[in-house]
Amino acid sequence: MPNVQVKVPKGTRDLAGDAIVLREEVFAKIRKVFKNHNSNEIDTPVFELKSILTDKYGEDSKLIYDLEDQGGELCALRYDLTVPFARWLAMSNTRQIKRFQIGKVYRRDQPAIDRGRMREFYQCDFDYAGALDLMIPDVEVLCITAEVFEALDLDVTIKINHRLILDGMFEAVGVPKDLVRPISSAVDKLDKMSWVEVKKEMEEKGLKAEIADKIGAYVRLTEGGRGFSETLDFLRSDEVLSKNEQVKKGVEEMSLLLRYLTASDIARYISFDLSLARGLDYYTGLIYEVVPKDTSLKVGSIAAGGRYDNLVGMFSKRDIPCVGISFGVDRILTILKARQTPPKSTPKIDVWLVAFGSSLLVEEKMALARQLRKAGISVDSDTKADRKPPKQLDLAKSNGAALAVLLEDDAEAPGAVRFKILVVPEKDAEKADVIDRAELLEEVQRRLDLA
Amino acid sequence: MPNVQVKVPKGTRDLAGDAIVLREEVFAKIRKVFKNHNSNEIDTPVFELKSILTDKYGEDSKLIYDLEDQGGELCALRYDLTVPFARWLAMSNTRQIKRFQIGKVYRRDQPAIDRGRMREFYQCDFDYAGALDLMIPDVEVLCITAEVFEALDLDVTIKINHRLILDGMFEAVGVPKDLVRPISSAVDKLDKMSWVEVKKEMEEKGLKAEIADKIGAYVRLTEGGRGFSETLDFLRSDEVLSKNEQVKKGVEEMSLLLRYLTASDIARYISFDLSLARGLDYYTGLIYEVVPKDTSLKVGSIAAGGRYDNLVGMFSKRDIPCVGISFGVDRILTILKARQTPPKSTPKIDVWLVAFGSSLLVEEKMALARQLRKAGISVDSDTKADRKPPKQLDLAKSNGAALAVLLEDDAEAPGAVRFKILVVPEKDAEKADVIDRAELLEEVQRRLDLA
Repeated sequence: MPNVQVKVPKGTRDLAGDAIVLREEVFAKIRKVFKNHNSNEIDTPVFELKSILTDKYGEDSKLIYDLEDQGGELCALRYDLTVPFARWLAMSNTRQIKRFQIGKVYRRDQPAIDRGRMREFYQCDFDYAGALDLMIPDVEVLCITAEVFEALDLDVTIKINHRLILDGMFEAVGVPKDLVRPISSAVDKLDKMSWVEVKKEMEEKGLKAEIADKIGAYVRLTEGGRGFSETLDFLRSDEVLSKNEQVKKGVEEMSLLLRYLTASDIARYISFDLSLARGLDYYTGLIYEVVPKDTSLKVGSIAAGGRYDNLVGMFSKRDIPCVGISFGVDRILTILKARQTPPKSTPKIDVWLVAFGSSLLVEEKMALARQLRKAGISVDSDTKADRKPPKQLDLAKSNGAALAVLLEDDAEAPGAVRFKILVVPEKDAEKADVIDRAELLEEVQRRLDLA
Repeated sequence: MPNVQVKVPKGTRDLAGDAIVLREEVFAKIRKVFKNHNSNEIDTPVFELKSILTDKYGEDSKLIYDLEDQGGELCALRYDLTVPFARWLAMSNTRQIKRFQIGKVYRRDQPAIDRGRMREFYQCDFDYAGALDLMIPDVEVLCITAEVFEALDLDVTIKINHRLILDGMFEAVGVPKDLVRPISSAVDKLDKMSWVEVKKEMEEKGLKAEIADKIGAYVRLTEGGRGFSETLDFLRSDEVLSKNEQVKKGVEEMSLLLRYLTASDIARYISFDLSLARGLDYYTGLIYEVVPKDTSLKVGSIAAGGRYDNLVGMFSKRDIPCVGISFGVDRILTILKARQTPPKSTPKIDVWLVAFGSSLLVEEKMALARQLRKAGISVDSDTKADRKPPKQLDLAKSNGAALAVLLEDDAEAPGAVRFKILVVPEKDAEKADVIDRAELLEEVQRRLDLA
């Protein structure tokens, strides 16, 4: 063995066994919700031209994985599925689409594996592109969000805010234009840091203490979980904010959204949170973040998204407004795994073949296995030809087989094979029924239907 | 718009629409075959430590994509799924497993997109690891190969050979030890190049012309499709080869394989081809390559694999013999797409909602959509609230909806909404049945069952 380190790269992991079965179940449920909304899947390369990713992620651009320059184009691993989608839209003739994509994305971040924070992780994205009536696609994205977590039986809060309200608030209290995004990104840390620390970051970024205090008063208003209408009423009546044009427009949109949330019967999941800011540069309207209701789960947000009306225009002459959500499957899996009940005892395969005796039986076993599989029946058997039948029946049970088919030398007719069927976990071969070879497939099918 | 080139990296592509639907169908069929053999899925990171990939791919190592050194570990994109599987095996306690993996792999090769040769492409791998009875796992891998192409309804030839026969032949005719792999790789090109060209490459690699001619005579023996038993008979009777220990052992294994192929009823797919060599270094026994029977399809091999008994030992103190196959899904898709019949007209979604009139209807539509989706019914509707009903019914048809549900202001009860059901593609709203709101879900379910 050469002297190489045998491990996976930092922040990545292998997946096998129950973990991957659970992941496939989660994918299937999310896919079903996406398809119930008549949405279309796309796939894009795992790396993009580096220039496509440049200037899209603000402070987080430093986390992008670059490919080595080996001659030819400069490329980088995708950081999310949103920018590739905008690039795809810009290249296609599509002007309106509900699209979804499931794929891995890459961030050179500090990993925290127990909390589901990885350098390679899956995102499941749904985005609704098109110049459509106000808040109609937005509420559909929030419906999808609610339906995904309903399907996963996971109780969540969807925190929402509006970039116009946030930016208008900054404008109204006198945040200089060039500090809007940095201050916004400081506000976004209020779910992890205390107000004192956030204020300190604001001052370090060059904001006056008295302006920071005004922001603090506003964004902490919804801390206790003030109601949606109540928050709208406040924004409409506050002396400073009510005069700001951006706030006004944001409030108008949020009022319409509230009507639609109520009609769609998902208002109960929503929490209007004035401190929600989201880090990414490209959001322009509604923003949201999903957290588990059970606050003992320290995984952070498990889905997030928002409206981004100008991203496609960075790649194309014609802009297409978009709104979308990204589900953080690895964090969701971390939660589901923690609460997982013991695996169900449903059979994993249909038939286990048990043969013991002459070498002729090996070939009879192969022929039978092939015949059953051709009929769509899953089949497995012990690969050691000479292990005794009771041991083989143990394997049938531990592999979750529904039926065992036994092959044995026929004592009465030398050179012939006798076939028997047994319902697992029965182990007494005496209790097996002898079946004629010609009727074996039919008999197996009949018993599987009964099982 | 900034001055960036909006395209995908060379040799990669986006997938959308029918192409991705077809791919998902193909994945589902392959997965079903894998599962019918009771095999377990695993997933590994898209990049590995660079040292893991070193010295595994012979001449092709130059095609590996490296990640840039941004501090930390040196990594590279995976070149196949086999080496990561061997690395995974070495790290786990597993000593015997049937595993499958579906994932993208990366090669900095010259792309030929119309023939399905890409720099980023999917592989679907099945591998059988474990110290098991001779040829038992090998024939199961070949069964899986046959069953995958049966499931895809694609007629194929599985060309097989044995590294011991090939290496023994080289030894018997006097190929120097250090030239065995380079000469083997020259032989492998006989399916793309003439014998004259291959011989020239051998001589350039330092082989004497008369030795090259001896190899040429042997490897071209099976050109016309000589039978399996006939080829075995030849190898047993040839004066030079029959004395070589490696050839003898290879012939013995191939004889056993032939018995098992016949028992498994897949011998008809197999062609014993003495010119098949496979490029990779790590094969040690049986090797195979699948080509479409229809030779007008210029895609090359669409699946390939073999036995590799020493690869795990490169990562671990204990070795585990393995045998496996890799399906080249992108090439398979290229073939399936070319012969694709027009898409079936099975409905893509269940219900299309049509509303026209007061703003109240928008909210009624949302409430109804949510109620239907909660019951597992897929729903969509036009997003322009004011498009006339006949136009909306056109959309219902073009989206493949089974039913349309119409919402309209109730002329007899101001402020109330009237609901109707129509079977698409019927467009005459007069023919729709008026349904009571309270009975709508049940009625939709009833009609979908009938559809």
